[in-house]
Amino acid sequence: MEAKQNIVERLRSGDRRAVARLITWAEAGDPRFARALSMFYSSIGSAWRVGVTGPPGAGKSTLVNELAIAHRAAQKTVGILAVDPSSPFTGGALLGDRIRMEDRTSDPGVFIRSMASRDSHGGLARAAIDACDVMDAYGFDEVIVETVGVGQAEYDVVSAADTVLVVLCPGAGDGIQAMKSGLLEVADVLVVNKSDMPGADRLIVDLEEAVELRSRKPAGEWTVPVVACSAGRGQGIDAVLAAVEAHRAHLADGRLEARRGEMREGQVRRLVHEGLESELWHGHGYAERSAEALESGAAPYDVAGEILAEIVGRLPGRGTTRTGAAT
Amino acid sequence: MEAKQNIVERLRSGDRRAVARLITWAEAGDPRFARALSMFYSSIGSAWRVGVTGPPGAGKSTLVNELAIAHRAAQKTVGILAVDPSSPFTGGALLGDRIRMEDRTSDPGVFIRSMASRDSHGGLARAAIDACDVMDAYGFDEVIVETVGVGQAEYDVVSAADTVLVVLCPGAGDGIQAMKSGLLEVADVLVVNKSDMPGADRLIVDLEEAVELRSRKPAGEWTVPVVACSAGRGQGIDAVLAAVEAHRAHLADGRLEARRGEMREGQVRRLVHEGLESELWHGHGYAERSAEALESGAAPYDVAGEILAEIVGRLPGRGTTRTGAAT
Repeated sequence: MEAKQNIVERLRSGDRRAVARLITWAEAGDPRFARALSMFYSSIGSAWRVGVTGPPGAGKSTLVNELAIAHRAAQKTVGILAVDPSSPFTGGALLGDRIRMEDRTSDPGVFIRSMASRDSHGGLARAAIDACDVMDAYGFDEVIVETVGVGQAEYDVVSAADTVLVVLCPGAGDGIQAMKSGLLEVADVLVVNKSDMPGADRLIVDLEEAVELRSRKPAGEWTVPVVACSAGRGQGIDAVLAAVEAHRAHLADGRLEARRGEMREGQVRRLVHEGLESELWHGHGYAERSAEALESGAAPYDVAGEILAEIVGRLPGRGTTRTGAAT
Repeated sequence: MEAKQNIVERLRSGDRRAVARLITWAEAGDPRFARALSMFYSSIGSAWRVGVTGPPGAGKSTLVNELAIAHRAAQKTVGILAVDPSSPFTGGALLGDRIRMEDRTSDPGVFIRSMASRDSHGGLARAAIDACDVMDAYGFDEVIVETVGVGQAEYDVVSAADTVLVVLCPGAGDGIQAMKSGLLEVADVLVVNKSDMPGADRLIVDLEEAVELRSRKPAGEWTVPVVACSAGRGQGIDAVLAAVEAHRAHLADGRLEARRGEMREGQVRRLVHEGLESELWHGHGYAERSAEALESGAAPYDVAGEILAEIVGRLPGRGTTRTGAAT
């Protein structure tokens, strides 16, 4: 127990190496992470978590860099998690990471960590949330998670944030592409970066129309703003920050708790399913039943259906404990 | 029942619309698919399934096009599944698809279908295997699944094939990148496309070295060949086909059954987990327990751990039915 208390103590006392170590544990699925988290979980919640996503080349890393600089100028500390996509072929995040590192490594108010999808054993969203929890508990005022918008895992990563910025730019992968992709659905703020480039105005108009078409929702709901900036020139960063602040204010009265509660429930579900995936097929006879049934020519759906029914039959019955879920 | 028998009858009698309909059901997770599959599952197994993956821009679609042309010249029929990645920003497959459609739509010996990750509700690998099963049962001699190498889901898609081609090209995303990415691990054949471009020879040498370093395996194991081609010029296609044939011959004595058996077992596991994901959180009290525990401040790992232990405690005991898994 001593070693674990130790690392949590170190985390609380401002030891950055404890942050790094805990994130490494989370990434590796090391059981020590869960034990440590139990000890520092109660001190989580004061950081504002911003997720930044968008297509490769939209300038996410540059924007994140500028956001961090602005936060530092306002005396706020920043923890950054750069999540690389599974594929090494869109290595923008790594490059961006290197640029940022040069700018800011010497600043103790900034912590930067990159995380590769491949190293998280399929548990990318889990590991990313864990890393944010660590940075939050350490005491960073702002936590930024940057990920290229490619797959479900990356989608899960950003949607766990308090405010999600979707960064687009004119040209590469138009607004229409973004609309098709579901990126708009996850956005709390749409950022049109490289707003000095040709086509930016058109993209802004297209996005504003798309947002309006979508927002047939009850009054009091958040309307996704479209904000223009040119991160490379350091222009419009204040507008992006203002949009984040507005969203934060919007979430203030109870909505934040609901949103974070949903995020935590999703996390529990993911952990249970992750646990079942490693547990179910060893020592319960299901692997053997499956192999035998397949061997005898049964269709996979039928084999799975039988096993599923058997498992579900063992669970507590439907409707037994429907006690207030959100009391 | 009549409608279902009908579609399976139509599939068997060569109605291409039945192929399209069944794949649509699979994609949508329509329960009619499972029932239909049970009826035609016994007629699956004669198609050779080739998975084609690699980074965006490697020329996968062009290669697939050339492979299809070569198969047609040899009087073989071809079913092609083009899996788009979740992101619309690497829309190569769609473009490639369109090019292919123009070339070959009029040929009744070719069937082309594209499948978007986003439409398969997280069950991309399941839906892709289902689609291959449909094309196989219809009677296509060759089934080709093309997917851009981005995420875990796409990885799962190609690794379900009998022979996996990993397509690389000089320049964009070097061999070293591919080695880091895990793409080499899934490859049965490495294809260096655009072999007339500068850097191709170097890439071939690098890949051959990487393969050699990796292949400290027992004698009789498959050694991944590195094959050069220039699909855009129609050069080297025969070498690619020869490598596929060599791999097919290698798998002949029992290895194919083992490989396909593993693929089916993976499919059963995926179906069981997919079923649990939609079942577990409704009517068994776990969602409520999770919400209440989180509400009271418990850490997600602890909440998940308790629920997991509860579920596992209800499963048949460890080690009870360890009957021969591979008899």
